[in-house]
Amino acid sequence: MRVGDLQTPSLVVDRAAFEHNIEEMSAALPGPRLRPHVKAHKCTELARRQYEAGHHGFTCATIRECEGMAAAGLGADLLLANEVLDCRRIGSLVDEGHRVIVAVDSDETVHAAARGGVHEVLVDVDVGLPRCGCDPDDAARLADSARRLGLSVEGVMGYEGHVVGLTVAEERAAGCRRSMELLMRAAELVGGPIISGGGTGTYAFNTWATEIQAGSYALMDTAYAKLGLPFHQAVHVLATVISSHGRHAVADCGLKSLGMDHGNPSITGADVWFCSDEHLTFAPAMSVGSRVLVQPAHVDPTLAYHDRLHIVDRLLDAAAGQAVGDAEVLDTWLIDLRGW
Amino acid sequence: MRVGDLQTPSLVVDRAAFEHNIEEMSAALPGPRLRPHVKAHKCTELARRQYEAGHHGFTCATIRECEGMAAAGLGADLLLANEVLDCRRIGSLVDEGHRVIVAVDSDETVHAAARGGVHEVLVDVDVGLPRCGCDPDDAARLADSARRLGLSVEGVMGYEGHVVGLTVAEERAAGCRRSMELLMRAAELVGGPIISGGGTGTYAFNTWATEIQAGSYALMDTAYAKLGLPFHQAVHVLATVISSHGRHAVADCGLKSLGMDHGNPSITGADVWFCSDEHLTFAPAMSVGSRVLVQPAHVDPTLAYHDRLHIVDRLLDAAAGQAVGDAEVLDTWLIDLRGW
Repeated sequence: MRVGDLQTPSLVVDRAAFEHNIEEMSAALPGPRLRPHVKAHKCTELARRQYEAGHHGFTCATIRECEGMAAAGLGADLLLANEVLDCRRIGSLVDEGHRVIVAVDSDETVHAAARGGVHEVLVDVDVGLPRCGCDPDDAARLADSARRLGLSVEGVMGYEGHVVGLTVAEERAAGCRRSMELLMRAAELVGGPIISGGGTGTYAFNTWATEIQAGSYALMDTAYAKLGLPFHQAVHVLATVISSHGRHAVADCGLKSLGMDHGNPSITGADVWFCSDEHLTFAPAMSVGSRVLVQPAHVDPTLAYHDRLHIVDRLLDAAAGQAVGDAEVLDTWLIDLRGW
Repeated sequence: MRVGDLQTPSLVVDRAAFEHNIEEMSAALPGPRLRPHVKAHKCTELARRQYEAGHHGFTCATIRECEGMAAAGLGADLLLANEVLDCRRIGSLVDEGHRVIVAVDSDETVHAAARGGVHEVLVDVDVGLPRCGCDPDDAARLADSARRLGLSVEGVMGYEGHVVGLTVAEERAAGCRRSMELLMRAAELVGGPIISGGGTGTYAFNTWATEIQAGSYALMDTAYAKLGLPFHQAVHVLATVISSHGRHAVADCGLKSLGMDHGNPSITGADVWFCSDEHLTFAPAMSVGSRVLVQPAHVDPTLAYHDRLHIVDRLLDAAAGQAVGDAEVLDTWLIDLRGW
C-alpha cells in the first residue's frame, strides 16, 4: 500500500523520525527514568515500541487509557496521573493483577481510592500550574490519611505544566527548578520511592524527579518544535487539495482532524489562513488532487480525533520530492485508547 | 438512570431546549426549506428528529456522513456539500438507490463525479468565503462541462460562512444579501431547481436560497448564542469537579472533549481560566465531586470527540437548583457519523 491509496484526512507517521525520537529519548532517559505518557498518542502499538525501548512503566490520564493498556498486556506498572472520584474500574484492574497507582490531592480522592479498591497512590502536589495538586504543606497530612485507610503511598507527583512550553531554554530550566524544589519538599515529608514529574519540554532539565512523564516527544507537534528539542516532527495529517483558486487552495482536513487550542496547524512552504470543520484554506494555490502534509500545533487533541496511525517509510523524503503519494505504508496502528 | 450515574465527561442534551430548537426552526423554515446539516451533530438519531419535523433532505460534509445517513434509512435526498476527488463510495450509494448530490467547483471535481458514478451535482460558487467554490462567472462553463459528461446539474450552492457569525444582525443580513446576489447570478446561468446556502446565523435573512443548510441550531454553542437567535443552548459537557483549591476548581473535561477553535467553553456563573487535555480550570472554587455543565464554544468539533449524546429531562431546571445529578436520562443516541 502507498500513501496515495490512503483516504484523507489520515494520520501518517514518518518511520525514521519516529524511531529517531524513541531512540533519542531512551538514550537521554533510559529504562525507568522515563514513564511515557500515553495521553499524547493513545495508541497501544506505539506504547509497545516505548516498552521495547526499555520503558516498562507508563503514565495515563484517563481510566480508559489504563484499561486499554492493561488489555494490551502493558499494565504491569501504570500511573493514572489524574484525580478520580469513582475508582471502581481501576480497582477491577488491580484485582486482575495489574499495577495502577492513582494520584490523590484531597481527602475526597484519598477516600475514593480506598473505596474503589486501589492499593497504591501518589500525592499530587501543586508545583505552580493552577490545576490539580495539593499545597506542598498539606502533602504529609494527605499521605498519613491515605496510609490510615490502608493505602500504600508510593511517593509524590507534580507537573510543571506552566513552564514546559517556555521557548527560552534557560527560563524552562529555571522554572523547572522552582517547581521541583516545591516537589522535593513534599517528597521528603511524604516518603516513598517515586518522585514523578516533567514532560517533553523539561525532560533534559528535570534531574529531581525519579521518572519523567514525557509523551509528546514520540510524535511531536509545532508547539514543541519551537523549543529546539532534538526530536523530529513524526506525525502529519495527510490531506488532499480539493479546491484551488487564484490565491489559495483548500485541503480536506479541518477542525475535526486537528487539535486547535494551540492555533492553526502548519504546512511547510505555505501560509495557513484558517480551518473550517472539514477544510483547511492556505496559500499559495496548488493543483487540485495534490497531497499535502499538515503539521498539528498540538499532538494530543489531534490524535484523539483519529482512529488509526499509518506508519510510512521515507515519508519526508518523498514529500521533499513532491511525490508523497509514492511512499510506502508499512503498518497501521489503531488509536485504541480514546474515550473515557 | 440519572445524570449522577453518567461517567464524565459526557455530552448531555436538555430535552426541552432541543425540542424547542427543532420546533422553532421548522416553523421558520418548514419542510424542504431546510436541508439540515448533519456535520453539526453527526448523529442519525438526532437527524431522525429533524426528519420527523418535516425535513427530508439533509446536508453532509463527508462521505462517511452520507454512508451513515443512508444506512440509517435517511438517504432519500442527501447533498454532499463538499468537493470530493474519489467519488466511488458515493457512486456505490447511488447504485443502491440513495440520492446523493455532490458539490463540484472545478474540472477535476466534475470529472471525479462522473468517473465515480455520481449522477447529480450542484455547482459550488464562491460567494465571498475564501474556501471552495468557483468564480460565479465560471459556473456556467462548469455546468456545461458536467452536462456533457452526462451529469444532471441540479443547481448551485454557495455558503456565506464569512458572515454567519457576525454578531450585528444588520451586518449579517447585508453580508448575506451580497453573497446571495452572487449566487443568484450563477444560478441563472447554471439552471436547475436547487439554490442551496445559508446557515444558523443567516437562516432568517436568506430568502434567496431555496433551501438552508443550517445545523448548529439544533444543539447550539456559545459562539452562536452571541447572535441573539431564538435557539437555546441544548448540549453541554457534563463534568465532575475532581480538585478544588482556594481560588479555583478543576473539572474532568478538557481539550479532548471540547472543540477549541472558537476559544474556551463557558460555565454559567464561573470564569473559565484554561483547558488542558483532560482538565478545565475555573473559578471560583467548588466542592470536589460537584457536577458542572460546560457549554462548548463550537458545537461541531465538540460532538466529533464523543461517541454518544445523553438526552436528559429537565436538565437545566435541575442545574438551576444545583441538583443536576438528579435529572433523568431519557435516552442515549450514538454519534455514529464520525470519521471519514
